[in-house]
Amino acid sequence: MNDTNPMEWTMKDDIYWMRKVIRLAEKGRGRTSPNPMVGAILVKDGIPVGEGYHAKAGEPHAEIIALQKAGDKARGATLYINLEPCSHYGKTPPCAPALIEAGVKKVVVGMEDPNPLVKGRGLEMLRNNGIHVEVGVFKQACLELNEAFSKYIQSGKPFVTLKIAATLDGKIATKQGESKWITGESSRRFVHRLRNSADAIIIGIGTILRDDPLLTARMKGGRDPYRIVLDSRLRILEGAKVIHQKPEKTIIATTESAPKEKREALEKKGVQVMTLEAQQGRVNLRSLLSRLGEMEMTSLLVEGGSEINGSFLNEGLIDKLFLFLSPKVLGGQALEMFGGKGVETLEKALLLNRLKMRRVGEDILIEGYPKKVCSQGS
Amino acid sequence: MNDTNPMEWTMKDDIYWMRKVIRLAEKGRGRTSPNPMVGAILVKDGIPVGEGYHAKAGEPHAEIIALQKAGDKARGATLYINLEPCSHYGKTPPCAPALIEAGVKKVVVGMEDPNPLVKGRGLEMLRNNGIHVEVGVFKQACLELNEAFSKYIQSGKPFVTLKIAATLDGKIATKQGESKWITGESSRRFVHRLRNSADAIIIGIGTILRDDPLLTARMKGGRDPYRIVLDSRLRILEGAKVIHQKPEKTIIATTESAPKEKREALEKKGVQVMTLEAQQGRVNLRSLLSRLGEMEMTSLLVEGGSEINGSFLNEGLIDKLFLFLSPKVLGGQALEMFGGKGVETLEKALLLNRLKMRRVGEDILIEGYPKKVCSQGS
Repeated sequence: MNDTNPMEWTMKDDIYWMRKVIRLAEKGRGRTSPNPMVGAILVKDGIPVGEGYHAKAGEPHAEIIALQKAGDKARGATLYINLEPCSHYGKTPPCAPALIEAGVKKVVVGMEDPNPLVKGRGLEMLRNNGIHVEVGVFKQACLELNEAFSKYIQSGKPFVTLKIAATLDGKIATKQGESKWITGESSRRFVHRLRNSADAIIIGIGTILRDDPLLTARMKGGRDPYRIVLDSRLRILEGAKVIHQKPEKTIIATTESAPKEKREALEKKGVQVMTLEAQQGRVNLRSLLSRLGEMEMTSLLVEGGSEINGSFLNEGLIDKLFLFLSPKVLGGQALEMFGGKGVETLEKALLLNRLKMRRVGEDILIEGYPKKVCSQGS
Repeated sequence: MNDTNPMEWTMKDDIYWMRKVIRLAEKGRGRTSPNPMVGAILVKDGIPVGEGYHAKAGEPHAEIIALQKAGDKARGATLYINLEPCSHYGKTPPCAPALIEAGVKKVVVGMEDPNPLVKGRGLEMLRNNGIHVEVGVFKQACLELNEAFSKYIQSGKPFVTLKIAATLDGKIATKQGESKWITGESSRRFVHRLRNSADAIIIGIGTILRDDPLLTARMKGGRDPYRIVLDSRLRILEGAKVIHQKPEKTIIATTESAPKEKREALEKKGVQVMTLEAQQGRVNLRSLLSRLGEMEMTSLLVEGGSEINGSFLNEGLIDKLFLFLSPKVLGGQALEMFGGKGVETLEKALLLNRLKMRRVGEDILIEGYPKKVCSQGS
């Protein structure tokens, strides 16, 4: 390695460990909410001496687990961690003092705490105690890992991911509403992974009435998200699967115009009925997001039909798009991805940033983040 | 290289030369029609001793040029060529006898001649004269290179490539018809390359009336394809750019219902007016393809609007699709990729094979070949 200068080597080293940190943090995906996913590794003389990840809200933080595992070896070690260690009391004691006490020499951090109220305080405490701190290593990946948490902690509202499965010509069902299956098995398996990482799935009553889906995360070790049904007039049938299976995980979002008896009958079945203000006869989506934020939900997966997709689009509420395109063409008057009226001019089209594409089985998956240029209020 | 057995090395060698052959053949793209693109390299003791490509119909074949360049060195050499050498007289004398006479020892061929009337005859002639022949090296790439020629020579009809520029939600224009520009500059530059390799572009009168495009291949060294305007009632304006600029490259496809005086006026301007049978008031596309095939056109690029795309789709006439997707969402009732009625069930959706995807500037390009399962007649 005599052609590499020591600085460069350090950078490579940092990225190597930070990748591992992210993989560790990922183990908590879907379980840490409303906390972020965090992984931590203590490295001494190039050798890992302790590692940990945050497994669940209320349980120990990643760096504390790593410290416990390292024991005495933590003294003089370098901590790699994707998120700034906390300096404040939450459900657990703060981590920065523990790192100081353990004699950690250096802390390499992926990103600062996105919470504007505490941002930088943990790092400051470390620096004030003689610990060398580096921030921003492998930052983009760290930001993406906790993109939902970051939005939630800054706005009090959950991060909204819209998932669409469509044909190459942008259709999500035939004229007759046939949509099983537009995309292939691999894409559907991928969707179960998305469900596993979301706090709740949002779906329209139309889809419930037509397909009666279960909406669980059917994968090994998966855990089921809340199922939120948008049903302004409470048209849901009492025999629907989302009512009979795990009703405690079902929230039906409705409006004042829903019949009271139906509401009571549903509540008796064990589901939660949430009454929200109406907007042109439908559930007001902004009110819904605020309410879900208050319930400490940080991430939502919208799997709605054409109408719901269109409403989220028109309200400017989409934070991330997962578009699965199957190698099929339906043509003509099949069902659109986005209902509603859409925009009038190309200039007003929603632009997507940071586009990624990949193959998922026979399908193509396109990921992107809507550019929030002209926010339509919030 | 002591860990590689000689057989393997030969295969690698063959692919190395065949790649070069294809790159040579590509130099003739857009100019060899109705002939195929062909490249040839003579290799002796691992060193190229002569190479050539077919530059234009009527000019010498690739292998003849390579033989001329090699001179005496051709004796004992191996010829690499993407297509079976011909054994029959066309506009030029046959190549197989020339190879035999020059003393070529071995011929490595990408694919057999797709013309069922002569397929294998050239190879047979070579074999009968003691030349070692290998067929099918790097075959898939050779097949794709001449996919248009292969279809034409087997069916007498041109290969139809449909190009669409759309938003992620499958829209090709806003409700008001605004389509400039859905895709970015890189995609538009790519389209000029597609035009450069097509014998003709097909476009609808709607697009001509709305955008008045020039439809040339604006690229360095580009040559312009024919422009075929589908205009069943001859609504085209005499001031249209496709009439004023290079009228000899413009064909207006119409029906008997077009006014005779307009037809004569247009012909006086120097454009060709082609009268075809009507199908529900429109130009019958199958008749059009047959007629263009008779004119020795081997490849068409359809750049039509929603209605024309839909007609080609519904008639099952698309051989290849180039779909440029821009990272934009229009939503709602913007203009569909495919007009017309489309299919009723998912089972009847058009399936695409051999899907490829890549980035083109900020856009995504998806290429595919419609599976011709249930041919709707021919």
